[in-house]
Amino acid sequence: MSTPLAPILAVIGGGQLARMLAEPAAAMGVPLRLLAEAEGVSAAQVVPDHVVGDYTDLATLREVVEGCAAVTFDHEHVPTAHLEALQETLPVHPGPGALVNAQDKAVMRERLGAMGVPCPRNAVVADPAEVAAFGFPCVLKTTRGGYDGKGVWFVSGPDDCAEAFAAAASAGVRILAEEAVEFRRELSAQVARSPSGQVAAYPVVQSTQLDGICHEVVAPAPDLDPELALAAQRIAMRLAEELGVTGMLAVELFETTDGRVLVNELAMRPHNSGHWTQDGAVTSQFENHLRAVLDLPLGAPEARAPWTVMVNILGGDAETGRLYDGYPHALARDPRLRVHLYGKSMRPGRKVGHVNAYGDDLEDCLERARHAAAWFRGDLGEDSE
Amino acid sequence: MSTPLAPILAVIGGGQLARMLAEPAAAMGVPLRLLAEAEGVSAAQVVPDHVVGDYTDLATLREVVEGCAAVTFDHEHVPTAHLEALQETLPVHPGPGALVNAQDKAVMRERLGAMGVPCPRNAVVADPAEVAAFGFPCVLKTTRGGYDGKGVWFVSGPDDCAEAFAAAASAGVRILAEEAVEFRRELSAQVARSPSGQVAAYPVVQSTQLDGICHEVVAPAPDLDPELALAAQRIAMRLAEELGVTGMLAVELFETTDGRVLVNELAMRPHNSGHWTQDGAVTSQFENHLRAVLDLPLGAPEARAPWTVMVNILGGDAETGRLYDGYPHALARDPRLRVHLYGKSMRPGRKVGHVNAYGDDLEDCLERARHAAAWFRGDLGEDSE
Repeated sequence: MSTPLAPILAVIGGGQLARMLAEPAAAMGVPLRLLAEAEGVSAAQVVPDHVVGDYTDLATLREVVEGCAAVTFDHEHVPTAHLEALQETLPVHPGPGALVNAQDKAVMRERLGAMGVPCPRNAVVADPAEVAAFGFPCVLKTTRGGYDGKGVWFVSGPDDCAEAFAAAASAGVRILAEEAVEFRRELSAQVARSPSGQVAAYPVVQSTQLDGICHEVVAPAPDLDPELALAAQRIAMRLAEELGVTGMLAVELFETTDGRVLVNELAMRPHNSGHWTQDGAVTSQFENHLRAVLDLPLGAPEARAPWTVMVNILGGDAETGRLYDGYPHALARDPRLRVHLYGKSMRPGRKVGHVNAYGDDLEDCLERARHAAAWFRGDLGEDSE
Repeated sequence: MSTPLAPILAVIGGGQLARMLAEPAAAMGVPLRLLAEAEGVSAAQVVPDHVVGDYTDLATLREVVEGCAAVTFDHEHVPTAHLEALQETLPVHPGPGALVNAQDKAVMRERLGAMGVPCPRNAVVADPAEVAAFGFPCVLKTTRGGYDGKGVWFVSGPDDCAEAFAAAASAGVRILAEEAVEFRRELSAQVARSPSGQVAAYPVVQSTQLDGICHEVVAPAPDLDPELALAAQRIAMRLAEELGVTGMLAVELFETTDGRVLVNELAMRPHNSGHWTQDGAVTSQFENHLRAVLDLPLGAPEARAPWTVMVNILGGDAETGRLYDGYPHALARDPRLRVHLYGKSMRPGRKVGHVNAYGDDLEDCLERARHAAAWFRGDLGEDSE
């Protein structure tokens, strides 16, 4: 084909987020060009036009984006200098000026503090003495490179701090201390924002972590004070606008025991806390990310069902065979279950898929999604049904 | 990757049906291997593992299915002898014994007649004199090779028959005469059937043709007598079972002016009359076709909204530019609109995409879907909104 029928979108990173972005791209007739870490990774299995290479190599990035209308990302690890260089030739979504707030927690805390956005008390600390001055117990985080519970330590005294400072030193990053917030639960507020400035806010959801990894999401967050939900959405919309985010923004929040919301983390891409939207919302977060980075009008973010529950499928410890072999039981038990598998092999703790269950009854959705995820993980025997 | 994480499904034919099958395949973690007619055709744009070749060549077919768990089809044109040869090495869904009823209208009419399934009066005719004996006016159809209004002629006298018999002679097929049914409207009853025998029946829909091409579908068919809907579903289920269909079966029916349903055509694959299921049903016809041919439990076929309207986007006569350029207006006007484009260039009358609009109000869904399809086709000016 000589003239492309539609603009080509470059996607850096071949994980499951890029794979799930490929679904609405196929539906909307938008060709993707992928930079994959290796042949056969999750997204490379479903995007024919892919290059295998290193996203820290600028020449490789330039090769991938050649002829593309815009570039977006599966992850937040592309160096800022490379993003700035790419931005001279094509739109980069999100741009480096916004993305640094998702890459560097110290930058993010400073910026949010200046904006007056409610955050846990925090300070960059140089050594255990400064942590002691900040106050124990607290949470230490590497300023860059952490994800899914990695790069985070709960510390209750000076003796606990060694591992964090060693990790930071070896990675060449700093340590941020944050107060250990007494929270009722974690929430996530997602918005899509286009370069033209249109913003669509998804319902605020409840997110449950397990070993620092997002495990279960309930949409909308049950029994959430409507004023607090609105406050969370307003924070997300304001951050998207003032930081200049383009594409999806996830704002992970603590709902404190005294009824406030505090910003925990930012992610500027489709996020695990929004996987429920694939089956539970009018427009999925993946489609709205695609629309946003192409500067197309955004789709309605509203829920299609009273409740949607998402549970991650994590690789188990046991030799559980192929994930695919979970289908016969899981699908027969629940003909309304929605299963998403990422084309990844099982490894302990690895995110290999998720399930969505939607309906009118929250308890029913929870039971269905939890059962199915445990079944795929291999935690249930045939007699546990 | 050495051992595949899931069985590989071979798909013969690279049109939009194969492309739309690739969406649930990606979601469910099922790898596809595609035989495409040419590089860059609709499905080849989204299935990395594809071979370009000729589906009438058995050696090519054998190469494609090597190592696959089953084979299915984008179209019904693979020669029966080849299907029988493939069946010796892997499951073929639908199998040749079932598929011949969708390939050869004379075979189908004879079989349905023997089963006592209500059909228009029909007879294979050898010349205009036999058509006269059958009775004018009537419909002449080539027994094989017709689709989207091609290979169908309405004739009212012996002089009208020349074109049909010339086409049949040149194609080496026969002519079937059928009574010109007085019908109120056309309906479609779809079922999915797995090799194990599980059957799921979708709501019966109303289908409107334009120049012999499916143009608009309303799900469910408005004001349809529940007994007639049940009769249509029972016919579809019975045909799926007795013909041994595996995968999706679409039974196109006439609702006669005297309140009966008569079988018009059969299709043994995902069908245009089921595109509404992508956004309007719990499980799309593409996912249920995938599940069926892999012999996995079927998903719930029920509607998610009171009404869903599908309107095809056909290439227009005018120079209307890129289809993609229809997005800014169409998506801004209707944030709940669902658009599916097939990665095909515009040609007059060519199916290049479709839109789905679902909701509580049928008139509203009709207006939204019709407007959007006309807009993409290029039939509306900016001032027609």
